[in-house]
Amino acid sequence: MNGNRFGRLFQVTTYGESHGEAMGCTISGCPAGLELAEDDIQEDLDRRKPGQSMITTSRGEPDAVSIKSGIQDGYTTGTPIGLVIENKDARSGKYEPFITAPRPSHGDFTYSAKFGTRNWGGGGRSSARETVNWVAAGAVAKKLLALEGIELKAHVNQIDDIEAPEVSFEELLEYSEENDVRCAHPETADLMQARIEEYQEEGDSIGGSIYFEARGVPVGLGAPRFDSLSARLGQAMMAIPATTAFEFGLGREAREYAGKDRNDDWEFDDDGTPTPVENDHGGIQGGISSGEPIYGEVTLHAPTSIPKAQQTVDWETGEVVDDAQVIGRHDPVLPPRGVPVVESMLALTLVDFMLLSGRLNPDRVDGQSGTYDTDYHPSNPRNE
Amino acid sequence: MNGNRFGRLFQVTTYGESHGEAMGCTISGCPAGLELAEDDIQEDLDRRKPGQSMITTSRGEPDAVSIKSGIQDGYTTGTPIGLVIENKDARSGKYEPFITAPRPSHGDFTYSAKFGTRNWGGGGRSSARETVNWVAAGAVAKKLLALEGIELKAHVNQIDDIEAPEVSFEELLEYSEENDVRCAHPETADLMQARIEEYQEEGDSIGGSIYFEARGVPVGLGAPRFDSLSARLGQAMMAIPATTAFEFGLGREAREYAGKDRNDDWEFDDDGTPTPVENDHGGIQGGISSGEPIYGEVTLHAPTSIPKAQQTVDWETGEVVDDAQVIGRHDPVLPPRGVPVVESMLALTLVDFMLLSGRLNPDRVDGQSGTYDTDYHPSNPRNE
Amino acid sequence: MNGNRFGRLFQVTTYGESHGEAMGCTISGCPAGLELAEDDIQEDLDRRKPGQSMITTSRGEPDAVSIKSGIQDGYTTGTPIGLVIENKDARSGKYEPFITAPRPSHGDFTYSAKFGTRNWGGGGRSSARETVNWVAAGAVAKKLLALEGIELKAHVNQIDDIEAPEVSFEELLEYSEENDVRCAHPETADLMQARIEEYQEEGDSIGGSIYFEARGVPVGLGAPRFDSLSARLGQAMMAIPATTAFEFGLGREAREYAGKDRNDDWEFDDDGTPTPVENDHGGIQGGISSGEPIYGEVTLHAPTSIPKAQQTVDWETGEVVDDAQVIGRHDPVLPPRGVPVVESMLALTLVDFMLLSGRLNPDRVDGQSGTYDTDYHPSNPRNE
Amino acid sequence: MNGNRFGRLFQVTTYGESHGEAMGCTISGCPAGLELAEDDIQEDLDRRKPGQSMITTSRGEPDAVSIKSGIQDGYTTGTPIGLVIENKDARSGKYEPFITAPRPSHGDFTYSAKFGTRNWGGGGRSSARETVNWVAAGAVAKKLLALEGIELKAHVNQIDDIEAPEVSFEELLEYSEENDVRCAHPETADLMQARIEEYQEEGDSIGGSIYFEARGVPVGLGAPRFDSLSARLGQAMMAIPATTAFEFGLGREAREYAGKDRNDDWEFDDDGTPTPVENDHGGIQGGISSGEPIYGEVTLHAPTSIPKAQQTVDWETGEVVDDAQVIGRHDPVLPPRGVPVVESMLALTLVDFMLLSGRLNPDRVDGQSGTYDTDYHPSNPRNE
Repeated sequence: MNGNRFGRLFQVTTYGESHGEAMGCTISGCPAGLELAEDDIQEDLDRRKPGQSMITTSRGEPDAVSIKSGIQDGYTTGTPIGLVIENKDARSGKYEPFITAPRPSHGDFTYSAKFGTRNWGGGGRSSARETVNWVAAGAVAKKLLALEGIELKAHVNQIDDIEAPEVSFEELLEYSEENDVRCAHPETADLMQARIEEYQEEGDSIGGSIYFEARGVPVGLGAPRFDSLSARLGQAMMAIPATTAFEFGLGREAREYAGKDRNDDWEFDDDGTPTPVENDHGGIQGGISSGEPIYGEVTLHAPTSIPKAQQTVDWETGEVVDDAQVIGRHDPVLPPRGVPVVESMLALTLVDFMLLSGRLNPDRVDGQSGTYDTDYHPSNPRNE
Repeated sequence: MNGNRFGRLFQVTTYGESHGEAMGCTISGCPAGLELAEDDIQEDLDRRKPGQSMITTSRGEPDAVSIKSGIQDGYTTGTPIGLVIENKDARSGKYEPFITAPRPSHGDFTYSAKFGTRNWGGGGRSSARETVNWVAAGAVAKKLLALEGIELKAHVNQIDDIEAPEVSFEELLEYSEENDVRCAHPETADLMQARIEEYQEEGDSIGGSIYFEARGVPVGLGAPRFDSLSARLGQAMMAIPATTAFEFGLGREAREYAGKDRNDDWEFDDDGTPTPVENDHGGIQGGISSGEPIYGEVTLHAPTSIPKAQQTVDWETGEVVDDAQVIGRHDPVLPPRGVPVVESMLALTLVDFMLLSGRLNPDRVDGQSGTYDTDYHPSNPRNE
Repeated sequence: MNGNRFGRLFQVTTYGESHGEAMGCTISGCPAGLELAEDDIQEDLDRRKPGQSMITTSRGEPDAVSIKSGIQDGYTTGTPIGLVIENKDARSGKYEPFITAPRPSHGDFTYSAKFGTRNWGGGGRSSARETVNWVAAGAVAKKLLALEGIELKAHVNQIDDIEAPEVSFEELLEYSEENDVRCAHPETADLMQARIEEYQEEGDSIGGSIYFEARGVPVGLGAPRFDSLSARLGQAMMAIPATTAFEFGLGREAREYAGKDRNDDWEFDDDGTPTPVENDHGGIQGGISSGEPIYGEVTLHAPTSIPKAQQTVDWETGEVVDDAQVIGRHDPVLPPRGVPVVESMLALTLVDFMLLSGRLNPDRVDGQSGTYDTDYHPSNPRNE
Repeated sequence: MNGNRFGRLFQVTTYGESHGEAMGCTISGCPAGLELAEDDIQEDLDRRKPGQSMITTSRGEPDAVSIKSGIQDGYTTGTPIGLVIENKDARSGKYEPFITAPRPSHGDFTYSAKFGTRNWGGGGRSSARETVNWVAAGAVAKKLLALEGIELKAHVNQIDDIEAPEVSFEELLEYSEENDVRCAHPETADLMQARIEEYQEEGDSIGGSIYFEARGVPVGLGAPRFDSLSARLGQAMMAIPATTAFEFGLGREAREYAGKDRNDDWEFDDDGTPTPVENDHGGIQGGISSGEPIYGEVTLHAPTSIPKAQQTVDWETGEVVDDAQVIGRHDPVLPPRGVPVVESMLALTLVDFMLLSGRLNPDRVDGQSGTYDTDYHPSNPRNE
C-alpha cells in the first residue's frame, strides 16, 4: 500500500535511505525450521555490493548483514526475521548543484513534489541502495525454494545492442558469475565489458537487460485473474529501479506469432502426465505455472546519474543550469548488479505462491506444525 | 490474494465463468456523489462485447449490466456498487474433444491441475469473458478520473508485423473507435483488418499490441518502492488474458539508449514549475508520476483457440489426438476487443492511486464528507 | 479496507442496502471439491430470516439465495462463488419523520455525515439486513469446517437481566433451535420470551447476549501478535451490528481472578499430549488455539428503532422533534436472530485461519491439487 | 496476515523476541512534515519500561530507541521510519524447569505446537516485551493525531474487585501518571497498590482493567461493515497480550438496557449541528465515529508467570511436575504498564482511519503534497 512491503504470506518490509544510518528489512511469514545464518544472506549481498569491479560505483559498502531476531540455534523459529545493514560509506551533501535542482530523469523531482521535501542525500529513499534489502530477503526465499527443488538464475543478456545468444540453464549456473558483467556467454561478456567502458569514459551510461529462469516450479502456482503468476511477476519486476519493460515467454515478440506457431502441443511424458512439447508459453498458462521452466526478461534503462553535462533548473534561484554534472559515485550500467535483484524478486514471488497454494507449509518447513510430538523439538537445549 | 480482487482503496471483486449463469462485479470504495447510471457502464461494455464485427467471436451476448446497489437518485452513496451481467448465450459442452484433453497453450491444463477439476464449459473462469467485469468497473473509474481532469485512451498499434505510426492523443480520441480494429491510424487499420482476415480464413489467429496513454495525471502518484506506479501498472496489465509483455516510456528499447540520450532535461514551464523537455520517461520517474503523459504498450499473444488442427492428449483414453480442432466461437485476434480492457486496467490503477494519495476524497467526490451541513444532502427527498 | 470485505484467504465481499434491489456476496478462496447446493445455505438463512416468529420484525423476506458461479455438478470449482439474495419486501420512504432527522443512536447521522448523503431507505447500508450476506458465507465456511471435524454453535445466554445457566455443547446443539429466543435452556427461554414481549408491548426494545462455542479446533490457529485468534475474533464479532462487547474465556471476569486461580495446569492426555486440566483460557493461549473448546460471549445492545417517543432534530426545518416514533417493522431484541450471525463470523474467522495455517488446502479440500491424476476429475462429463 | 503488522495505511511492522538481540519496528505510511525526534518516542517507552516501580518486573531495560531512517533535519520525510530498541538485559535459559514443559496458560505450548520448536528464551516472540514496539509506533501516531486536535488517555480503572469511580478526561490527564498503578483516582490507586503487593508477596498475580478515552475525534471515521471503528478497535485491543474482553460505550452492561434508556436523543449544538444529548453509545454509531468522545474498557487477565507452585508436564521426561515455579522477573499485574500500550493501539487505530478517510493527507501533514512550490522545501540545506 505504502510501497515498503512486498508479498502476501511471505512479507518483506523495508526501510532505509541511500545516505541514512542503516537499511533494514523485516521478513514475516518465513516458516520455522529453515537452517539460516548470516553467511547465507551475505553471499548474495556480495554479488549486489558496490565497488565489486571497475564497472560499478566505487562506493565502499561492506553491506554486512546482522540478524536481530527470528533465529534460534541456527534455525528459523517462524517469528519475524529482523535484518539490519548499516550504511558505512554514506556521504550526503555531495550532489551539487542538485540540492535545489532535480537530476534529469531521476526521482528527485517526483519525490520532492510528492512529499514536499527534498531528500538531498543521494536520492534518499529513491536510491537503488534500497535493493540491498530485497537481495537479503531474496536469499532467504531462495533457501526455502531450494528445499522444494526450485532453482533459479539470471544473467545479463543484452547491453546496448550487444545481445547474448541463448544459453542453457546449466550455462547460466556455470558462467554468469564468472565475469564482471554477469553474462553467461563469456565472449559476449567481453564485448559488453568493452562497450560499457566506452560509455563510462565518455561520462555517459548505457541500458541493458536481464534474462531470468526458474526450474522445478510445480504446476498450479498463480491465482488468476488479478493475481496470476504473470501479474505478480509483472509487479515484482517493474518495481526494480530503472525497469521499463517486463516480458515472459515470447514476450514482445508474441505480437508477430500466429496462434498455430505459438501454441504448444501436448504430449504425454514418461509418467503419462500431459506435457507441452515446447515452451513458448514461458512456463505460465492461463496465469498459472505449467510445470515447465519459467523464463522472461527485464529491461533496465541507463543509469540517470552521469558526469556528462545536462540541463536542469534550480527552483531556488530560478535559473536554468545547462552544464550540470552528477559527480557522485555511480554505476555506468545497471544489469550486472541487477542480476541478484531480479533473482530476488523472482524468488520472493515464487515463495509467496508456494505458501499461498499450500505447497509450502506456512508454519514449519517440514510440515511438522500443529501436531505436538514430544520427541520433536530441535531447539530443546537438553537435546544437546 | 485469491486473484478475484483488484485495487487497494478502489476495490473490484469479481465472479463468473464463461458459460455460467452470470458475471458479477462489486465495486467497494467508490466515493459518494458520483453521478452514475447503467448507461455510463453499458457504453464501454458495448465496445468489449462479442459479435460486434466480423473479426470478433460470433457469441451473441447483449452484456446488459444491472446495478443492484450503491446508487440513490442517480448518485453513488459511498456504499458498494453491486453489478450483475447475465450470460445469455452460454453453450457449455461444446468443446469436443477437449473435455478430457487440454487445449494447447490454453488454461485448461493448469486450472485442472490446480483445482483438481475440469471446468469443461468454455474454459470456465479462465475465459476472457471475465474481462466484462473489468470493463464495467473501469467505466466507473473513468468517470471519477474525468472529474479530476484525467483522460485516457488506448488503440491497437500493431497486428502481426503491421505497426501503426505514432499518433497524437487527439488522433487517439478521434480515430480509434472509427474502425473494427480500433487502430487510430485509418490506413494502418485497413491493412490490419486484411491481415486478420487472412489468418481467420486459415483457421488460425494472430497476436498484436495495444498502446495506451493517460493525460492530466497529477504529479505524485505512486508509492515506491514495491507499489510504484510502474509496478502496479505492471500487475494490472499483466493480469489481462494473453498478455506477455508490458512496457512504458521507451520500454524494451531503453536497453539500447545511453543515459545522456534517454534522460530528459529540465526547463521551467510558464508557471515556473520544473518540467521535463521531453517525455522518454513515459510520465513516471522514480516510480512516481511526473505530470507528463503516461504511456506504454501491452503485447497480447494470438488467441489459443483455433480451428486449425493441433495435437493434444486425452487423459481419459490415454491417447494422443493429432488433429484436434477448437470449433467454438472465438476471436481471431485479441487487441481490438482488448482496447477497453487495457483502458479499464489503466483507469482502475490510476483511480486507486488518486485515492491513496488523498487527491480524491475517499468518502465523497466533492470533499463534503465529514462536515455536517444541514443544507447539504442531495438525496433528501424533500428537496424535490 | 472499505469495510465490505472480510477474511484474508477465505474472502467475503458484500453489497446491498436494506431497501435496495438485492443483497450480494462473493466468496473468493473457497477450495474446490466441496459439495455445495443452495439448500445448504438456505437453511442458515432461514434461521436469520425476518418474520420467523412474534419477536422478530414482520418484514416478509423469503431470503432465497441464488448461486451464480463457482459450482459445477454440485461441487465447488475453486473459483469465486457469487451469491445474490433479492429484496422482495423493500418499502423505502417509510420512516417519517426521519428523512431529514437522525434516529437516536442509529447510524443515520454518522452515515449521512460521512458520505454527505442521506440514504433514507431504512438505513440503507447501515441496516442489519446486510448480515444476510454474512450468514450465507458462513454457511459455506461451516461446511468446510465440518470436513475437518470442527463444529460450532451459539445460543442466547442473556436477555435483560435474565441469564441462562451454563449449558453443555450437547445441550447447545439440542435445544438452541427449539424455541423462538434461541436459548438452549428451555425454562430460561420462556422467561426471556415473556420479558421481550413486555418491552415489545411498551414500544420499547431490550439488549442481550450470545454465547458461542467451537469444538474440534486444532492447536495452532492464530498469528500473534496483531492477528492472534483472539484479535481476529474481536474484529469479527465487533463488526456485528449493535455489538458493544466481546469476551472469550473468563472475559470481563478475568479482572478479578488471581493468576494461580485462572492458570490452567497441564496434564498428559491418554496419547501423552500435554493438555490443560481446565479451560479458563477459553481455548486460546498466547493468541493461538490450544486445542480446547473456544468459547466466548458477544453483547448486543437493544435495537435503536422503537415506536416509543424519542427526541430528534430535523436538519432541514431546524426544529427539535420531541415525539418521534420509528414506525417501520423492527425487532424488539437482536440476539435471537443474531445467533446464526455470530456463528457465521466465528466460522469465517476459523476457516480463514485453517487456510492460513495450511491445515486446509487452499486449492482443493482433499489436497489433490497440484498433482495431475488422469483418473481424477470428478467433473468430467464422460464419467457419468 | 502473519501477525507482525498492524494498520492499513499507517503500517507498523515489528520483530523481536524477549531475549533476542533487539526489538524492531518499521512505520510505513507516516506522512512527511511531522516534527519527530527520538525523545518524542522515548517518553512513552519510559512509561512502559520494566523496572519503573516496585510493582513491575525488575528486568533492567533502558529501552532506548534509535531512529534509523525516515527523518531529515528533524522532520519525517514520508519514507519508512525504522526503529531499533536493543535488548540489554536479556538472560535466556533462566526458566527451569520450563525448557521442555509449558508454563500454565502461557503461550509456551501453543507456540511450540504451531512452529514445532521451543523458544525457551523467556517466551520468545510470545512475550509482552513485543509491546515496546507498539508503544514506539503509538508515540508517532499520537503526534500526528495531536496535529488534528485529537487527544487520548487511558488509566487503570479496576484491579481485582477494586473499581475506580468514574473520572473526567481532565482528571485522566492530570492524575493517571501520578502513581505507580496509573489510576487517575488517587485514593483508589492506593488501595490497588496495596492489593497488588498482597498478591506479589504470595507469589501470585492478579487481573485488572484499563479505561481509555479519545477526545476530538471527528465524525465519520470507520468503514462499516467489517472495518467499522468498533471492529478495528476490537482487533487492536484484543491483540494486546492477556486481553480477554473489549467493551465500548455501555459495553457488557448494554445487555440490560432498554432501547429507550440507551438511545441518545438528538439536540442541536450552538452551531446548529445535530448532537447527541448523552454518550451511552461511546462515540460510535453504526460503526462510525459520531464526534462524541470515544471510550471503552479492556480487561487484562493476571500474569501467568508466577512463583507459586503449579502443575505442568515435561514432554521430554514424560513426567508430571507438580511444584513448578516460574522464577524469572515478572510483573504481578499488567494494567499499570498496559496503559501506554492501550493508548498506542487506540492511537494507531485512529490515525489509520484519519488517513483512510482523507482527513489526514497521506503524503504530507500540511497537505502541501502534489503541488510543486519553489519556495517550499524545508529540508533545503541552502535555507539554513
